[in-house]
Amino acid sequence: MQPITLTTDFGLRDAYVAAVKGVILGINPKATVVDISHFIEPQNIRQAAFVLGTVYCYFPRDTIHMVIVDPEVGSRRRAIILKTQEALFVAPDNGVLSYVLHHASPGGMSSEAALTVLPPGVMAVEITNPKFWHHPVSTTFHGRDIFAPVTAHLSLGVPLQEFGEPTMSLQVFPPPRPRLGPGGELVGQVLHVDIFGNVITSIRQQDLRPGRFHLQIAGRRIESLAATYANAEIDQLHAVVGSSGYVEVAVRNGSAAALLGVKIGDEVEINNR
Amino acid sequence: MQPITLTTDFGLRDAYVAAVKGVILGINPKATVVDISHFIEPQNIRQAAFVLGTVYCYFPRDTIHMVIVDPEVGSRRRAIILKTQEALFVAPDNGVLSYVLHHASPGGMSSEAALTVLPPGVMAVEITNPKFWHHPVSTTFHGRDIFAPVTAHLSLGVPLQEFGEPTMSLQVFPPPRPRLGPGGELVGQVLHVDIFGNVITSIRQQDLRPGRFHLQIAGRRIESLAATYANAEIDQLHAVVGSSGYVEVAVRNGSAAALLGVKIGDEVEINNR
Amino acid sequence: MQPITLTTDFGLRDAYVAAVKGVILGINPKATVVDISHFIEPQNIRQAAFVLGTVYCYFPRDTIHMVIVDPEVGSRRRAIILKTQEALFVAPDNGVLSYVLHHASPGGMSSEAALTVLPPGVMAVEITNPKFWHHPVSTTFHGRDIFAPVTAHLSLGVPLQEFGEPTMSLQVFPPPRPRLGPGGELVGQVLHVDIFGNVITSIRQQDLRPGRFHLQIAGRRIESLAATYANAEIDQLHAVVGSSGYVEVAVRNGSAAALLGVKIGDEVEINNR
Repeated sequence: MQPITLTTDFGLRDAYVAAVKGVILGINPKATVVDISHFIEPQNIRQAAFVLGTVYCYFPRDTIHMVIVDPEVGSRRRAIILKTQEALFVAPDNGVLSYVLHHASPGGMSSEAALTVLPPGVMAVEITNPKFWHHPVSTTFHGRDIFAPVTAHLSLGVPLQEFGEPTMSLQVFPPPRPRLGPGGELVGQVLHVDIFGNVITSIRQQDLRPGRFHLQIAGRRIESLAATYANAEIDQLHAVVGSSGYVEVAVRNGSAAALLGVKIGDEVEINNR
Repeated sequence: MQPITLTTDFGLRDAYVAAVKGVILGINPKATVVDISHFIEPQNIRQAAFVLGTVYCYFPRDTIHMVIVDPEVGSRRRAIILKTQEALFVAPDNGVLSYVLHHASPGGMSSEAALTVLPPGVMAVEITNPKFWHHPVSTTFHGRDIFAPVTAHLSLGVPLQEFGEPTMSLQVFPPPRPRLGPGGELVGQVLHVDIFGNVITSIRQQDLRPGRFHLQIAGRRIESLAATYANAEIDQLHAVVGSSGYVEVAVRNGSAAALLGVKIGDEVEINNR
Repeated sequence: MQPITLTTDFGLRDAYVAAVKGVILGINPKATVVDISHFIEPQNIRQAAFVLGTVYCYFPRDTIHMVIVDPEVGSRRRAIILKTQEALFVAPDNGVLSYVLHHASPGGMSSEAALTVLPPGVMAVEITNPKFWHHPVSTTFHGRDIFAPVTAHLSLGVPLQEFGEPTMSLQVFPPPRPRLGPGGELVGQVLHVDIFGNVITSIRQQDLRPGRFHLQIAGRRIESLAATYANAEIDQLHAVVGSSGYVEVAVRNGSAAALLGVKIGDEVEINNR
């Protein structure tokens, strides 16, 4: 039986995550539930999309990924199930699956569109059938009352079409991609800062060309791409291709984000022509 | 096999929670252990009681809920097993099961008493039989040495009476209930502030009357009860019935607690005559 | 099937822990994975060694303990599997198993050596066989790409020698032990401060002699050893033998570390001649 994962902005102090797990176990007592993160910033859909996008491919095929970062809960925003060739996803239709859809699209999403038409081999269903919900349904906690029971029933093998009507288009935001600057340099941005203070940029390994490499960020210049964190001197700022394929700026045994004073969205430039 | 849940003030930095889980798995290798919260404030029995009280009903029948917020560990405070028609609870006898006993009592607990006589259909046992403990028993960590092995043996089906003698009365505090003010208004208090900054009050949906609604808190006045968070304007203070049935004060995509500067115990008033 | 435990400095905000669990479940879908701690300070090998050292003995025999605090990831530091009579350990060879080796050595480690020769009954293998790794192997995240798949295959019963060549010596640091001062007093140090603010010292119960007891720390003097936290007055500083056998300094329902202003490495003196 495939695992179920949870990605939320619920934190671990309140009992919200536990309520979700209790409902799942009430329907499928044998479920294996794995936490991806409950420390997404409150209502930060883009951060949730990024975090999920870096990790879902490390789970077994057909894992069910439930994502609840849901600022519009109780409104008319739709709830969806998405099925790709790799996995299933249960989430509000608010863009939180953008990286998943990007990876599932041949060539990636290229437009600035806020709606995507599903790529081949991908199916989506709008969750509308109350048969699989936990009643009474609160207006403020669909994670517990709709997403959790739907996820649990999915894990028991209930077919996708039982949960509602197929839908062909979903809310997305195109993941930030580097652009070419006037001198041919790649201009990207900071996507994420991890617990070590590593600064993860939107420039990926496959965006780089062989040869010369300079990176500029926050007025500092890094002259080469290291093979690994441990190749740098202690306390030295360096660049490395991180474990998800993005160029990262790191300080060995320290925090690059603190040293540089950068935050999500800040600009980074790589010149490797 | 029913799940086991854990509610503690141990945090997740030290290995205390892991020690509890290790002992449980040593006795029942197939146990499914679910964390409710390990971020109860140190020694805050009332907060633990509230958090447990909002979530246990979402777990399958006969789930075993172990609660270790235990400032009197090593003293003569008793350790107990409580069995209600819904679930089992293993905890120190210090009031941490007050909401559970309140919900299990027809009409709720009405007195100011610090001791409750068990309602019909509810049984309690004082844990005294060292046969089911992990030896040597430390004087400072009964969670690992008494509560965990007792919980694990319970999950294997050992009958309640094997663990000790029945007891008929338990330590409780009556959950805070709103009182009627001189003008007929409901006067309650702040019970909890969640990770989103939502302010959860002691006034429940069933305390409200239909019709007019004004809420006052920290010198601010809210004129109506919204159906859901998303019905309010961004940054606007509003009131809503939250997912556990209590009236909450929230700010859409923001923190009401930070905006209002309120804390647990502060007064809130609802006039809906 | 024995459980797998994880001890890391990854925190729970990013998806690093989840990636490790996803890889494990992809290889062994029935694995029971238990978190020991993910809040080891970044790159703090000694703290990880201590935390693991206090808890592994509470897990069932042959549990597999995976430890990833790995400042030298990507360099030539070795990755190892250690098998003692109690359990298996998968970790970088950087000293993180020092307490485990200390406990497995008759009489403990006595030298100041940075390398230990394995005690009788203990085996170690250097992980070199890429057959059991997750490819491509990143240079920055061996937890996901090497330690996780090796751990999962171990849990399926793959024999130790399949993973690489036996090795006879490992990196260690001798756990801090109290020394005798000029007046016969025991001079130790602060090893750890837990979530309650309890100050855990390097002086163990077996280091104490019966009779008189004075403890000095941060200019304060404690005149006796209490039997348990609850024996002290509220807010009173006291000493107690904690749940892992070390002398602790505590404040009942408060933080001794905050009151004393002490930190890891600070000196503590016990005179009980």
